[in-house]
Amino acid sequence: MRAVDIITKKRDGGVLSQEEIGFLINGFAREEIPNYQVSAWAMAVFLNGMTPEETAALTDAMLRSGKTIDLSGLYGPFVDKHSTGGVGDKTSLILAPVIAALDIKVPMMSGRALGHTGGTLDKLESIPGYRTSLSVDEFRNFLSEVGFAMTGQTREIVPADRLLYALRDVTGTVESIPLITASILSKKAAEGAGGLVLDVKFGSGAFMKEAGLAESLAQSLVDTGTALGLKITALLTDMNEPLGNKVGNFLEVEECMELLEPDYLKSKAAKDPLSLSFDLMEISLELSARMAVLGGKAKDAAEGRKLCEDVLKTGRPKELFLQNVRCQGGNPDELLGMLGNYRSPVKAEIFASKNAYISRIDALKIGQASILLGVGRNTSEDSVCPRAGVEFHHKSGSQVKAGDKIMSVWARDEKGLNSALPGLEDAISYSDKAPKPKQLILKEIP
Amino acid sequence: MRAVDIITKKRDGGVLSQEEIGFLINGFAREEIPNYQVSAWAMAVFLNGMTPEETAALTDAMLRSGKTIDLSGLYGPFVDKHSTGGVGDKTSLILAPVIAALDIKVPMMSGRALGHTGGTLDKLESIPGYRTSLSVDEFRNFLSEVGFAMTGQTREIVPADRLLYALRDVTGTVESIPLITASILSKKAAEGAGGLVLDVKFGSGAFMKEAGLAESLAQSLVDTGTALGLKITALLTDMNEPLGNKVGNFLEVEECMELLEPDYLKSKAAKDPLSLSFDLMEISLELSARMAVLGGKAKDAAEGRKLCEDVLKTGRPKELFLQNVRCQGGNPDELLGMLGNYRSPVKAEIFASKNAYISRIDALKIGQASILLGVGRNTSEDSVCPRAGVEFHHKSGSQVKAGDKIMSVWARDEKGLNSALPGLEDAISYSDKAPKPKQLILKEIP
Repeated sequence: MRAVDIITKKRDGGVLSQEEIGFLINGFAREEIPNYQVSAWAMAVFLNGMTPEETAALTDAMLRSGKTIDLSGLYGPFVDKHSTGGVGDKTSLILAPVIAALDIKVPMMSGRALGHTGGTLDKLESIPGYRTSLSVDEFRNFLSEVGFAMTGQTREIVPADRLLYALRDVTGTVESIPLITASILSKKAAEGAGGLVLDVKFGSGAFMKEAGLAESLAQSLVDTGTALGLKITALLTDMNEPLGNKVGNFLEVEECMELLEPDYLKSKAAKDPLSLSFDLMEISLELSARMAVLGGKAKDAAEGRKLCEDVLKTGRPKELFLQNVRCQGGNPDELLGMLGNYRSPVKAEIFASKNAYISRIDALKIGQASILLGVGRNTSEDSVCPRAGVEFHHKSGSQVKAGDKIMSVWARDEKGLNSALPGLEDAISYSDKAPKPKQLILKEIP
Repeated sequence: MRAVDIITKKRDGGVLSQEEIGFLINGFAREEIPNYQVSAWAMAVFLNGMTPEETAALTDAMLRSGKTIDLSGLYGPFVDKHSTGGVGDKTSLILAPVIAALDIKVPMMSGRALGHTGGTLDKLESIPGYRTSLSVDEFRNFLSEVGFAMTGQTREIVPADRLLYALRDVTGTVESIPLITASILSKKAAEGAGGLVLDVKFGSGAFMKEAGLAESLAQSLVDTGTALGLKITALLTDMNEPLGNKVGNFLEVEECMELLEPDYLKSKAAKDPLSLSFDLMEISLELSARMAVLGGKAKDAAEGRKLCEDVLKTGRPKELFLQNVRCQGGNPDELLGMLGNYRSPVKAEIFASKNAYISRIDALKIGQASILLGVGRNTSEDSVCPRAGVEFHHKSGSQVKAGDKIMSVWARDEKGLNSALPGLEDAISYSDKAPKPKQLILKEIP
């Protein structure tokens, strides 16, 4: 078998066999097949696509390029969630303890902020002492003890994905549905979770701007995951506006702690679609509902949602969150004392420029400005600031008067603050009439 | 400017600017842009194509990556010929001295045998002492003195083509019309010839098997060459059967010497389409005719052909051929003494298996068997045998009886002979009826 023949076959629109895909990916992971052949192949895949069978074979080959996490000996069921990434997207920190409280284990391997999108690991590491590089033993122990555990991807897990992603990033082959599918599912399959709920986002702050493309990706993920034996459901969710009322590493932990309070769901705010955390709680609950179904605790999403709401009101998820913080190196009491005051001293406020409705706070512009504030990073070598970010006092649908405070802003330093402010102001759109309410969840697949 | 943006633009079907193409090719030639980005770009070009303007910009950027041959101070006109390669294709050795005899200079930079196709340099080097690595001074001197000179490509000429070709060879991006066009024309433009006649071959022994593809390549070459200021004409010629009656390095020099004899054109054989060298002389004369036109010696191809035929009958081209041999290191007397007897002692003969017409001698099968005989090479590191090859005693259209000798075969060694014989026999097709005469030249462009 020769790499050039495999490239040529895909170039000419052919369907690659499992053996051919395995040969290419194994050879690449072992550095026997050079990157210039793999990048030409990736471009041919980008332009000519892959069948569901090819995508499954690619995912499987990538999975086999490294080690997997062995969950044998632990009681299941195991269900995880994966999001394609967004701004203010902190659902993992809510749904993991909720699902753990339903006796479903959540073995979660997460990523870091990159570009305008946030990363779960950076948010958790804003808690002093919190460690996200767990050994496999620690991961298993915390999962067993608390019901969920949060770790980063090690070099041993799916090394082919790490190599391939780095190559795709510099060769214009990132936005390919089969390549994205294999990248996501190979990592999730390596975790050992049998059930997976996908939050596939569309809109300005999402990786896929168009709902149609996001739906194609969701369908590919569901088809490929099913072919690999996973129980899998995808929701197509709106990412045109940041989720919740806070964007920033510690700020987002804080908002999740607020929503995990047993009284929150009983409050008026929880029922008001115009309240600032409504979208975040809604999407967290809908994702959790599907996880409850995949974990065998509910017969359908409605029943699953009811279970999740009920367990939230008991306060058990909040206790599990704090227990996880202690396991992973943080101090729960210290964390509780930081709420509401762990902010950078470099700050500003942004006010409404007119009497009007806010028609939109643009997720992409907020995400891009957040990089400048120190929330995110441009390259994987940059560091992030735990205390930087944005708090929204109004979001779309709010009626404001000129001079009303719309955002509070905290930055790593003055330079970052000054460079971020124009983008933050620019993110606000006004209209004379009340905007149509957003449809948060566009579709469920299958 | 970033390479990844240029790749992405071409991936999405965009048209690259001259600056973008120049940035990529210069960066690649200077090893500042890595080969894995260039291979992804080449695949995007392969699948999405290039406009004539992009192809011209690519050719120009490749030309500028290295040195060019300076012909200033020499009297022109300068006209060259390029063939896309075939089996038994030795027209260069006939037309170069013919055109030189018309006071048009032919500065010829040629290639070597690779795969089933022969190479002019290997043929010339079968003449003992003949040197094809000329310095620029030698090249200019011989061109001035004899009217034509034959040399190989140096590392200084179009280095970007050498790098890009090596990369395309292993990344499935060889058969791309814009990339082939730029590769051919950048090298030809570097020679300094203002006029160029192209022999674009189609058929089993050609690089482009289908006439339609060969025509697209010819059109691209003519359009791009014209855009670069070259005077250029292309002929689309048949390469389903080897040209002439001999395939092999010295054997082909020998056939050319026979056709350069002043009496040949006066002979009956020269007028008989069934004679074994008819196709070779016909294509050589038609190519020469266009060179005479581009060199300003004839108003049209018919007049050009008449000039070439007349000058052949004077014997002057044969004299110039021998003069070139002396200049480039060979001994003309020794060469003349080798004619008819410089053959490997390892030999065999192939006979007709039935009473029938020969409907075809397949060029590809002869070319592939020739590699085994020692005529050609599989990789550029292999050596060739000057005394190996095939002589045809019949070609398509001949009526034969079972037992008639069809080929004489000479091999480098017994092993090569035995492995080549089945393929040579398999190259012969028979039919009960006389086959239709071949149309040697399908089209002229423009």
